[in-house]
Amino acid sequence: MGHTIRDIAAALGATAEGDLDLSVTGAAEPASARADQLALVSDPKYADGLAKGAAQAALLWPGADWRALGLRAAVYATRPRYAMSGLTRLMDPGPAIAPGIHATAIVDPSAQIGEGAAIGPFVVIGAGVRIGPRARIASHCTIDTDARIGADALILQGVVIGARCAIGARFIAQPGVVIGGDGFSFVTPEKSGVEEIRETLGARAEIRAQSWTRIHSLGAVTIGDDVEIGANSTVDRGTIRDTMIGDGTKLDNQVMLGHNVVVGRDCLLCGHVGIAGSTTIGDRVVMAGKVGVSDNISVGDDVIAGGATVILSNVPAGRVILGYPAMKMEAQVESYKGFRRLPRLFAQVAELQKAVSKLTKSD
Amino acid sequence: MGHTIRDIAAALGATAEGDLDLSVTGAAEPASARADQLALVSDPKYADGLAKGAAQAALLWPGADWRALGLRAAVYATRPRYAMSGLTRLMDPGPAIAPGIHATAIVDPSAQIGEGAAIGPFVVIGAGVRIGPRARIASHCTIDTDARIGADALILQGVVIGARCAIGARFIAQPGVVIGGDGFSFVTPEKSGVEEIRETLGARAEIRAQSWTRIHSLGAVTIGDDVEIGANSTVDRGTIRDTMIGDGTKLDNQVMLGHNVVVGRDCLLCGHVGIAGSTTIGDRVVMAGKVGVSDNISVGDDVIAGGATVILSNVPAGRVILGYPAMKMEAQVESYKGFRRLPRLFAQVAELQKAVSKLTKSD
Amino acid sequence: MGHTIRDIAAALGATAEGDLDLSVTGAAEPASARADQLALVSDPKYADGLAKGAAQAALLWPGADWRALGLRAAVYATRPRYAMSGLTRLMDPGPAIAPGIHATAIVDPSAQIGEGAAIGPFVVIGAGVRIGPRARIASHCTIDTDARIGADALILQGVVIGARCAIGARFIAQPGVVIGGDGFSFVTPEKSGVEEIRETLGARAEIRAQSWTRIHSLGAVTIGDDVEIGANSTVDRGTIRDTMIGDGTKLDNQVMLGHNVVVGRDCLLCGHVGIAGSTTIGDRVVMAGKVGVSDNISVGDDVIAGGATVILSNVPAGRVILGYPAMKMEAQVESYKGFRRLPRLFAQVAELQKAVSKLTKSD
Repeated sequence: MGHTIRDIAAALGATAEGDLDLSVTGAAEPASARADQLALVSDPKYADGLAKGAAQAALLWPGADWRALGLRAAVYATRPRYAMSGLTRLMDPGPAIAPGIHATAIVDPSAQIGEGAAIGPFVVIGAGVRIGPRARIASHCTIDTDARIGADALILQGVVIGARCAIGARFIAQPGVVIGGDGFSFVTPEKSGVEEIRETLGARAEIRAQSWTRIHSLGAVTIGDDVEIGANSTVDRGTIRDTMIGDGTKLDNQVMLGHNVVVGRDCLLCGHVGIAGSTTIGDRVVMAGKVGVSDNISVGDDVIAGGATVILSNVPAGRVILGYPAMKMEAQVESYKGFRRLPRLFAQVAELQKAVSKLTKSD
Repeated sequence: MGHTIRDIAAALGATAEGDLDLSVTGAAEPASARADQLALVSDPKYADGLAKGAAQAALLWPGADWRALGLRAAVYATRPRYAMSGLTRLMDPGPAIAPGIHATAIVDPSAQIGEGAAIGPFVVIGAGVRIGPRARIASHCTIDTDARIGADALILQGVVIGARCAIGARFIAQPGVVIGGDGFSFVTPEKSGVEEIRETLGARAEIRAQSWTRIHSLGAVTIGDDVEIGANSTVDRGTIRDTMIGDGTKLDNQVMLGHNVVVGRDCLLCGHVGIAGSTTIGDRVVMAGKVGVSDNISVGDDVIAGGATVILSNVPAGRVILGYPAMKMEAQVESYKGFRRLPRLFAQVAELQKAVSKLTKSD
Repeated sequence: MGHTIRDIAAALGATAEGDLDLSVTGAAEPASARADQLALVSDPKYADGLAKGAAQAALLWPGADWRALGLRAAVYATRPRYAMSGLTRLMDPGPAIAPGIHATAIVDPSAQIGEGAAIGPFVVIGAGVRIGPRARIASHCTIDTDARIGADALILQGVVIGARCAIGARFIAQPGVVIGGDGFSFVTPEKSGVEEIRETLGARAEIRAQSWTRIHSLGAVTIGDDVEIGANSTVDRGTIRDTMIGDGTKLDNQVMLGHNVVVGRDCLLCGHVGIAGSTTIGDRVVMAGKVGVSDNISVGDDVIAGGATVILSNVPAGRVILGYPAMKMEAQVESYKGFRRLPRLFAQVAELQKAVSKLTKSD
């Protein structure tokens, strides 16, 4: 299925030059592009690759000379990274989920399936579930009692959406996502060792035997519009109120949100990020891979946390942080430089002690 | 399905006052409670919320004046957090798993299914499996050859229990749990680079090509009574003996236990905790989110590890630890204060050097 | 099903002494070995256990006296850890996947299934898929459109292999693996806050609202021969080119490889390791549990990274590293010693300041 250069430029709101009727069937890096593929050359430094590949057309940086690069046609994007979004959407064949309800799917008679929805093999849909129009659900998913899925959702293989969870429009769940597992909430009859050291910051009066009683999760999970969740990520239900994810927020693979967590809108949480129970994350927060956040704290709007940052206390809005425990990124970089030079500092102080001791004696 | 205030108090072993016949259908936070919900007000600081919500009854802290708070009835709990356990158990509708064996489930004729057990759609149960009475198994689970599951288990969607694994009573597995994957154990014909640097702590004589040969896992996984495991967590089988989890231990989501690991009883391992192969964890150990433990070491009874602690060597019983690598929590907090002030310390030492050099010259 | 001592020695390329016709049905640790099990005693320090168990035969360290240890037969391995590989392979009953295609499996008519392949219950195989000879696929897996799986693969329960992914021979996937989820790649119309702080290392001119547009993943995942992937691990597809894993590389449980990542051959990536998008990992790299690597960087051949190392910038070949952020292991150990003694260092500097101030006054 080809796309002409004219159509691609129109889809991207970009300009094009050369043979606008030339058709391409896909996109590729310059050096490996076939003659029927559009080469992606967002920066002059990648232009050399064109000579190694066979592309006749390319997405070029503004001002590039397509004739000098040996091409027959070119699309110009002012922000090539953003143009990738429209281009890949245009060329993505998407997952193969046949229209209609597969014969092997088990759909409770009380469930409402929206018009144009597609339900794959071995899917289980519980009582009272409502699935929005044009939603697509791949093989082996379970959508449990009274859950709601918005319009145009794409729910991939093996996803579990727990009872009473409510999800907005255009939701994307990669394979293996679990929404609405029970929260991890246990209590001891007497005050536990953990409760004690939270008050004392580490000191313990006495160690007692303790066994854990379960607090059941009566809440569910509420997810806004335009949310995407990566493969094998898990979002637990709330204890009394719902765990919440705001509009436009994206979670990467193997992310973990505990019970009662509230994540704002337009956040990006990268792979292996974990947010412990009852913590609140603001809007537009970006967390790099492996960031961890303690329970019962709050992270303000627009915070950016670098890779593997460990957040053990509240973070004010707008802060850029890094480290374990988290510090302002600039301060962390300075302290870390000192950490690297610590052995030398110890030597310098030892030398100073010797010199001062000598001076004191001679004094 | 409502519960009277009288019944709730009885279930919690708590006292109640006011209209004991008042019935509620659920619990809620004070500000969002409807008239038919029990508001949860464990502390005077949450009492203001009652005016915003419509609750007529509440779970109150000891000594609260229910009449002054505008309520018709109240339940009093001496430890409200513990009361949450009984209250949420009472009100949890639980998952919808129909009684009996679903028509689509594939159960090997040699498997023994206990009385009152419920087996969901598309479940696969292998040869020689024994499922305890009243166990409930949701859709898409596999219980493999000769595995044993105790009484009253609740195994949610898509869980895999590997061959020969043995699990006690009242087991709860959240969706996507994998018990009994193969251990991650590989060996090279000659001593590998990893074996070498373990002896030298970082120095390497020579780098050689090496390829990995698999050590198969002949052991299984043995799990005690009253264990709960969170969504998408994985517990690998042992190499020769079994990987073991003691009675009453709870694992949160995305926890990872390697081959041959032994975890004691009544432990809490929070989200993203990882324990590498052949390590032993004592009883009543609590690990906050993202704690990692090296292979072949031991962590004593009653240890508490703060968020993201990295444990690279043995930890004695009763210790409270934090940091990378782990230190006593109090020492870590002190050293970390120093880390933050390192740039200043370097400046102070540089100044001292100048002053001492001047003194030495003038000496 | 027994194995004689003679057969075991032959399978391991090892020598044996005593009653070579003695048959054993399995292997065990010395203290718990039954009379029909081979005890594993790789080191004299484990020999005491033999007296507690009932083993009549053992795998012994070179030079051990089997008669003095009360045995009837012994196998001698020059490198016992390596011998474990052959021994466990010999004794592993393997998973129970019945030959042929299960009646409940859904196989697209256009898929090609190799000779001797076994396809389990509730498996879904898409259009154009090619499965190699003797491949075994357990229950609830999905192999999507046009994916290719090599000969002798073992794909366990609930694994998802995405469309167009290509995997070599002897592939092993533990339960819950997801190959070919979409990459986590989003872009804003204007330069985002994250792009800004990457240039400034933390400083921000102005905070603006921003919402994320998806870059679709047109690439797939290419995996070499002899690769194994642990339970619930996820490997995302590439944006334009494929994400790649080289021959002989092994991934443990809950590992996460982002889009466009290239991992070389014969690597070991342990539990919870995460590699962010577009990063390149060399050959024979070993990463201990929880190691994290930033996006768009490269880690050279033969690098070894200790537990929970956080790699934020390029690492040259052959380096042994540890820490957050990563340092050479030896330097990290030295700096960490200093970190532990920081409170004392601050006290020493304060004392020096006092002494110097006194000297300066008296000077």
